[in-house]
Amino acid sequence: MRFEKPVPITEIARLISAEIIGEKEGVASGINEIHMVEEGDLVFVDHPKYYKACIESPATYIIINQKTEFPPHKALLLVSEPFEAYLKIVQHYRPFEPSFKQKSDTAIIGENTIIMPGAFVGNHVSIGANCTIYPNVVIMDHCVIGNNVIIQGGTVIGSDAFYYNKKTNRDVHYKKMQSCGRVVIEDFVEIGANCTIDRGVTGDTVIGAGTKMDNLVHIGHDTKIGKNCLFAAQVGVAGATTIEDEVILWGQVGVSKTLIIGKGAEVYAQSGVPFSVEGGKKYFGSPVEDAVVKKKEFIWIKRIPELWDKVMKGTDRK
Amino acid sequence: MRFEKPVPITEIARLISAEIIGEKEGVASGINEIHMVEEGDLVFVDHPKYYKACIESPATYIIINQKTEFPPHKALLLVSEPFEAYLKIVQHYRPFEPSFKQKSDTAIIGENTIIMPGAFVGNHVSIGANCTIYPNVVIMDHCVIGNNVIIQGGTVIGSDAFYYNKKTNRDVHYKKMQSCGRVVIEDFVEIGANCTIDRGVTGDTVIGAGTKMDNLVHIGHDTKIGKNCLFAAQVGVAGATTIEDEVILWGQVGVSKTLIIGKGAEVYAQSGVPFSVEGGKKYFGSPVEDAVVKKKEFIWIKRIPELWDKVMKGTDRK
Amino acid sequence: MRFEKPVPITEIARLISAEIIGEKEGVASGINEIHMVEEGDLVFVDHPKYYKACIESPATYIIINQKTEFPPHKALLLVSEPFEAYLKIVQHYRPFEPSFKQKSDTAIIGENTIIMPGAFVGNHVSIGANCTIYPNVVIMDHCVIGNNVIIQGGTVIGSDAFYYNKKTNRDVHYKKMQSCGRVVIEDFVEIGANCTIDRGVTGDTVIGAGTKMDNLVHIGHDTKIGKNCLFAAQVGVAGATTIEDEVILWGQVGVSKTLIIGKGAEVYAQSGVPFSVEGGKKYFGSPVEDAVVKKKEFIWIKRIPELWDKVMKGTDRK
Repeated sequence: MRFEKPVPITEIARLISAEIIGEKEGVASGINEIHMVEEGDLVFVDHPKYYKACIESPATYIIINQKTEFPPHKALLLVSEPFEAYLKIVQHYRPFEPSFKQKSDTAIIGENTIIMPGAFVGNHVSIGANCTIYPNVVIMDHCVIGNNVIIQGGTVIGSDAFYYNKKTNRDVHYKKMQSCGRVVIEDFVEIGANCTIDRGVTGDTVIGAGTKMDNLVHIGHDTKIGKNCLFAAQVGVAGATTIEDEVILWGQVGVSKTLIIGKGAEVYAQSGVPFSVEGGKKYFGSPVEDAVVKKKEFIWIKRIPELWDKVMKGTDRK
Repeated sequence: MRFEKPVPITEIARLISAEIIGEKEGVASGINEIHMVEEGDLVFVDHPKYYKACIESPATYIIINQKTEFPPHKALLLVSEPFEAYLKIVQHYRPFEPSFKQKSDTAIIGENTIIMPGAFVGNHVSIGANCTIYPNVVIMDHCVIGNNVIIQGGTVIGSDAFYYNKKTNRDVHYKKMQSCGRVVIEDFVEIGANCTIDRGVTGDTVIGAGTKMDNLVHIGHDTKIGKNCLFAAQVGVAGATTIEDEVILWGQVGVSKTLIIGKGAEVYAQSGVPFSVEGGKKYFGSPVEDAVVKKKEFIWIKRIPELWDKVMKGTDRK
Repeated sequence: MRFEKPVPITEIARLISAEIIGEKEGVASGINEIHMVEEGDLVFVDHPKYYKACIESPATYIIINQKTEFPPHKALLLVSEPFEAYLKIVQHYRPFEPSFKQKSDTAIIGENTIIMPGAFVGNHVSIGANCTIYPNVVIMDHCVIGNNVIIQGGTVIGSDAFYYNKKTNRDVHYKKMQSCGRVVIEDFVEIGANCTIDRGVTGDTVIGAGTKMDNLVHIGHDTKIGKNCLFAAQVGVAGATTIEDEVILWGQVGVSKTLIIGKGAEVYAQSGVPFSVEGGKKYFGSPVEDAVVKKKEFIWIKRIPELWDKVMKGTDRK
């Protein structure tokens, strides 16, 4: 998440009751997770395992729960609970703004775009030109939709990430990781009916130009879908995954989180993709394998009874 | 289903044109299916196979299609079609009340709860404090939602049970079992976008406190979900199943009806659970097995060609 | 698609800048894909592989990109891009009419039918008597719904077909095949919550009388579902498939396109049907097999380790 305008680091420190160690004069441009940060950003870390990665990341300001060495041009913001500090910052700089009307006053809608009845357009949404938003679509705050986009009825764009921190204290078992990211839908994308596309936690979920999705498709938070992909009905893609251009996923395929599907890969119906796969190939099975290999396996399985008979005869003869 | 106030059994008998055999003076507190009944309830049975179970259940009044022995403190309500009698009672004491406005006058909504545009709140719905109900959510009649609950856009709470009686007469193939139960969602539950949670047929579908569900999840009628469960996107759980506390179901898992998943079980993505499974273990496959056993099976399958070669060589040598 | 009234073929030719070869005096009754055409219809074809089938089909007028022999009572409409000509005809004779109110003035709604808040009823929709349309249902233009139909909340009827022409030119990768067909839902059908039923491309998607569907079910374009079928939650059926009467599909079953499932077939949960299957049998697996055969296969797989041991012992002995 990028702040609307840069925020003095002293203001952030005051908000989260942090001690600043290092550079106190700067301004922060945003707050992001480790894999999304840029120079000028805040990042947060509470586990020593990730200290080094965060301190060496492009982030300038590290919200951390222990004093640690760091480069001269950066600063630590020392707090006891970095995750809580993150939530405070999000709630302060991107507060939830409940809408009480269907189309928010802060939404920008392009020429020739049709928004049909019952569709909800949240705060700070931007929709390009020549789009058709069918009835009862929901587009939540801060989402960005390009030109010539079609979204069929009942689809929800920008629902919260399904992302929780497991807590071991009595009161709360799972603590919600507040989403402050966006969904960005590029030009000429078409999305079917009753789909759900979650916003990024701090970054963007992106649907690349020209990609087409059928109905009841789910796309998780921070996932990047390339250009000109085809996803058939009831496909589900988990969070923080990258699907390159021209990938085809047939009906009811499931794709796990934080993996990469290479350009032009094609995954047959009902397959499950639990790890990264190379582009340009066809896959089948749950877990997926090369489709040709998988089909041979089906034939081998059918030969077990024959194999059994051969072995039994061999045994008899002895 | 519990009646709003106890109903004289003679009034019920008149409504369904039943002959009362036994205790005529009492009042009925509600009507329920055999596994849900309490003392004072009506129950109904049309198959001799279930006569004994119904008569010996806690129910006080048995709607039945044949005279049968029964304990002294109970009563039979003799009718030719007990199922039709059940429907008549439900239609009379919990009639469908169509709503013509988005928020019914009989709904009770707690403090600081936000109901966003396009959300529908039916008759006699109760929603606690500090909830966020996102746009275009549907909460049907009589459902009960606790405090600090979040429901993302487009989700439907309290749709009818998918429950039909097969009829052999000409006109009707499947006769709808009219739902008169509820959905009860406890505190700190979060439900994703475009989910569907069916009401109980006569009892409650329950989502336990602290449970979190991702998008496009389906929960069937009368199913009881424990506390602090995690269900990933596109999970489907059929009717009258019990899922104990802290169960994790990953994406696209399917769970069949009337079974039990033990506390803390974890089921990997795309698995199918057709029978009860013990808690505290990890499962995989369709049908599911212990995940370690299942993974070994994949390795064994890959060894069939090698096995074939060995057997063929052995055969050659002879 | 049938035109509202027959259109002189000269008018069509002018619209798409076609040269008419053959009969110039007639009127066209509609435009359809090859498998749907009737006498008097237009059909379009751009690949020589399909020329013969189109010219010999019942269609009277063939929009084609090359002069070809044809019977005397027919006519060719010669254009360079038949697919573009099809789109022009659809856009002209069945233009997209955006609705700006929830219930269109051109919708016809039968007696005792209840349309609940937030439901959208598009242009030229027809709904029969005694139906219940729950909140936030979307019924798009031209759909036809019979009597005594129940549609639970959030379901979308008449979303566009997921059907694209792959283009090899720079600008467009996938070109949308504009849907001009309908969804026809017969009497006593019940459809669950958050389902999606796509309209036909040029013809009808049909849900046969008495069929019941649970929640989150997807039905593709031009698919014909028979009478008294039962589809459990999260079933997906692709386009142009035929499912005969009394078929039962359990939860999360996927059915591929352009195939036939015979009368009374039953497909167990999570199965995948990639080819036509005979009626009257039970199926399981992905891809499906006879359920008994499939279950035996599971047992055979479990015997591989035993088989391995036997072979290893045999090898040792030699």
